[in-house]
Amino acid sequence: MNEKQKKTQKLRARLPRGFVDRSAADIRAVDEMIAKIREVYERYGFDPVETPLFEYADALGKFLPDSDRPNEGVFSLTDDDDQWLSLRYDLTAPLARHVAENFNEIQLPYRTYRAGYVFRNEKPGPGRFRQFMQFDADTVGAAGVQADAEMCMMMADTMEALGIARGDYVIRVNNRKVLDGVLEAIGLGGVEQTNTRLTVLRAIDKLDKFGPEGVRLLLGEGRKDESGDFTKGAGLNVEQIGKILFFVGITDYARSADELAALVAGTARGAEGVTELNTIRSLVLSAGYEADRIKIDPSVVRGLEYYTGPVFEAELQFAVTNEKGEKVVFGSVGGGGRYDGLVSRFMGQPVPATGFSIGVSRLMTALKNLGKLGAEQVTAPVVVCVMDRDIESMGRYQRFVQDLRHAGIRAEMYQGNKKNFGDQLKYADRRGSPLAVIQGGDERASGVVQIKDLIEGKRLSGEIEDNVAWREARVAQVSVLEGELVAKVREILAEQAEDRKRAG
Amino acid sequence: MNEKQKKTQKLRARLPRGFVDRSAADIRAVDEMIAKIREVYERYGFDPVETPLFEYADALGKFLPDSDRPNEGVFSLTDDDDQWLSLRYDLTAPLARHVAENFNEIQLPYRTYRAGYVFRNEKPGPGRFRQFMQFDADTVGAAGVQADAEMCMMMADTMEALGIARGDYVIRVNNRKVLDGVLEAIGLGGVEQTNTRLTVLRAIDKLDKFGPEGVRLLLGEGRKDESGDFTKGAGLNVEQIGKILFFVGITDYARSADELAALVAGTARGAEGVTELNTIRSLVLSAGYEADRIKIDPSVVRGLEYYTGPVFEAELQFAVTNEKGEKVVFGSVGGGGRYDGLVSRFMGQPVPATGFSIGVSRLMTALKNLGKLGAEQVTAPVVVCVMDRDIESMGRYQRFVQDLRHAGIRAEMYQGNKKNFGDQLKYADRRGSPLAVIQGGDERASGVVQIKDLIEGKRLSGEIEDNVAWREARVAQVSVLEGELVAKVREILAEQAEDRKRAG
Repeated sequence: MNEKQKKTQKLRARLPRGFVDRSAADIRAVDEMIAKIREVYERYGFDPVETPLFEYADALGKFLPDSDRPNEGVFSLTDDDDQWLSLRYDLTAPLARHVAENFNEIQLPYRTYRAGYVFRNEKPGPGRFRQFMQFDADTVGAAGVQADAEMCMMMADTMEALGIARGDYVIRVNNRKVLDGVLEAIGLGGVEQTNTRLTVLRAIDKLDKFGPEGVRLLLGEGRKDESGDFTKGAGLNVEQIGKILFFVGITDYARSADELAALVAGTARGAEGVTELNTIRSLVLSAGYEADRIKIDPSVVRGLEYYTGPVFEAELQFAVTNEKGEKVVFGSVGGGGRYDGLVSRFMGQPVPATGFSIGVSRLMTALKNLGKLGAEQVTAPVVVCVMDRDIESMGRYQRFVQDLRHAGIRAEMYQGNKKNFGDQLKYADRRGSPLAVIQGGDERASGVVQIKDLIEGKRLSGEIEDNVAWREARVAQVSVLEGELVAKVREILAEQAEDRKRAG
Repeated sequence: MNEKQKKTQKLRARLPRGFVDRSAADIRAVDEMIAKIREVYERYGFDPVETPLFEYADALGKFLPDSDRPNEGVFSLTDDDDQWLSLRYDLTAPLARHVAENFNEIQLPYRTYRAGYVFRNEKPGPGRFRQFMQFDADTVGAAGVQADAEMCMMMADTMEALGIARGDYVIRVNNRKVLDGVLEAIGLGGVEQTNTRLTVLRAIDKLDKFGPEGVRLLLGEGRKDESGDFTKGAGLNVEQIGKILFFVGITDYARSADELAALVAGTARGAEGVTELNTIRSLVLSAGYEADRIKIDPSVVRGLEYYTGPVFEAELQFAVTNEKGEKVVFGSVGGGGRYDGLVSRFMGQPVPATGFSIGVSRLMTALKNLGKLGAEQVTAPVVVCVMDRDIESMGRYQRFVQDLRHAGIRAEMYQGNKKNFGDQLKYADRRGSPLAVIQGGDERASGVVQIKDLIEGKRLSGEIEDNVAWREARVAQVSVLEGELVAKVREILAEQAEDRKRAG
């Protein structure tokens, strides 16, 4: 064996960590889901736009919304002119670049949507991939919270368009400004407190992960995790911590609204935030969206560091069993909010914007759980078997296949290496083919073809006891003239479809 | 201004070189095209599969098919375990990795298709991007040329499904083995001639670029280009060169078949290649594909270095005007062939495979030229104007919008900052909106809304001479009860659609 051969044989086929191949069933399910979402977005007056996967690193900025390591998490490389390129980590930062770059041509408000892959250079884990798909909608150049209210209604309509029943989902809404008001009210306003506020925001962001007790530690002296690592806290006093935990603990806004308003009353931003929340509530109520669909909920703390005003989250409320065997609510499938700072980084002027992002594979998992995907089964192809391998016969088989295809029927000629007829039927069977078409020398002489119903055949073969009886019965196999092949195949496929329908 | 502000304001929004943003019209056109292609592939019994954008660099290999710089052209970076990751440069190498990695679970022949972005780290130029989309179909595990014949028929059917008339396209077929036979026949067989053969293959690959005279120089002593750079040639003699140029110059296979067969008669591979070409011709003819659709054509030289047997190319034959103002045939929109070596790199056994790849944006350009895309125009949203900004009115406008949307009509409430009514109409107009819905205080008091037909309005406004007459005519504006809004909007939209149909 020479050097080259040795090396060749050693080459190992493996996917990089945190990346996956997607199966036909998966691809079809996502396509089906995305088509339904797109229909809602289009109805809401949004149009598609798409940016490339690469951006200049500085144009993307360090705005990873869900990461506490804002400098990491991005795949980057240097271009041949020594500028840094990064793969996008979300679909919002590239949109901001796109709007700023084309500001003079773009008509504001700019209402767009996009589905695409994003990349995170993070340690992969179960259900945590380094390439995944997001589906976003954004309105750029709309300052009023009516744009945020619209986002919430669109998320609700999207959930229902996907077949998720009312009550199984809720869109929860909070406002970053209210939190700012709370912070100001407890003496954490002002530029000199910027770092403390950041620590507080990051502590609150851990509410889902560590619960109120964990957050209480992170707001106070600090918290030691299971491995013994200590995270220094924000150093707040008991009263301050109490007020923050009251705020993020609100679950019934109507009941706590007065207390919250009183807490932030002295602060301009807090009052503004409460007004915005109330306006959103009023707008969605006028349009018929009650609190069972869109709910004001200050316990939404996701991405507060990133967003500048309203934030929202689409949560699925039905129970699933997690990897530990516990019953839990499915949880978030998407979220968003107002990000007035992102486009204006490039501009000499403020450019308000709001939007939301759906985690495509997570939502697909949810829909699979609910049995809401894959309703339209794709029928596997009819397989035309190769009985004789002379060129004239091959040409004839090929013609049968083309006739079926041109009649709109999925079909293929067997192209495998195994010449055995049984192997060909095994192939058709594993492929899930509905029918096999067979023509050997005898049939050819009489100008007929055999059509074997593989679905019917399967069902009956359980009922017939021995091989002899099976052969004698010639189960589910009919012989037709060559010219009747297409019509007969169509007829049997229709019967099978009818059977499937009856079987539910 | 502090340091941070200065930096922020300097940030320049710009796309990296060789990348583009895609517009709504572009996205919709590609989606429409891909759906049509997918329908053909599915009918042929192919199923989707998708691989991620990253692969380990060694798994991708150095198989850039259309590059004479096989070591370059790839975007790569090191992972945190120091392994090299590369962005895929085509969709074939990742498929080979996928098949090898899942070989025990995969049912052969494995018939799949995939559309996706690929990346080339090359110098961008006009129409030459660093990210572009390919749409591939492949059969892995099929050794016989019936699989190649099927690829050719599928390409032909795809062209017709896209509306390209018979005669405007042709699928041209050649075979690498015939060229190998020619090389052997002129004394270039054997391991010791490997380098010369490679030089010959690369010279032939330049046929499109430099023409027969340029290739003649590259096959002989060498060629000096316009800039004075000299490329050393293969050093063949006149007779050798003549035979190669005879081979790649064949345009009428039937006429030259005997001469070609005689030329390669003494070589095993050459004879095999000729037999394969003849078999493909016979198979496609049996299925009704004459030479006006699938043509044996030894002048196809693309990718001969990469492929191992049959190669094919889909060429569009209608004339277009190039950037120099010359009339030229549109040319290639896709190609493929047999690559028996690609999967077996990972395996201890041979794994034959064949497939082809469509250049999506190039094909889209062709279809645009032919007027075959964008038949289904997407109607822009109805714009509900904001006349009063109190919360109750905003709620009402929002309700109108939601009522329209729930009736399946694209609609949006105006969300811009400009409060002027004229600006809102200008927005609706630039957006291409069919209708504006208007309700001020007076209308509100009487429970009515105004619907302004912006399409009709535009047409008439050319006919009415002065502003006074325009205002008096109240052109194309109707007043309806709030409860009749949806029905009336639907009615006007239907009238507009009827108008468009009449206008062709």
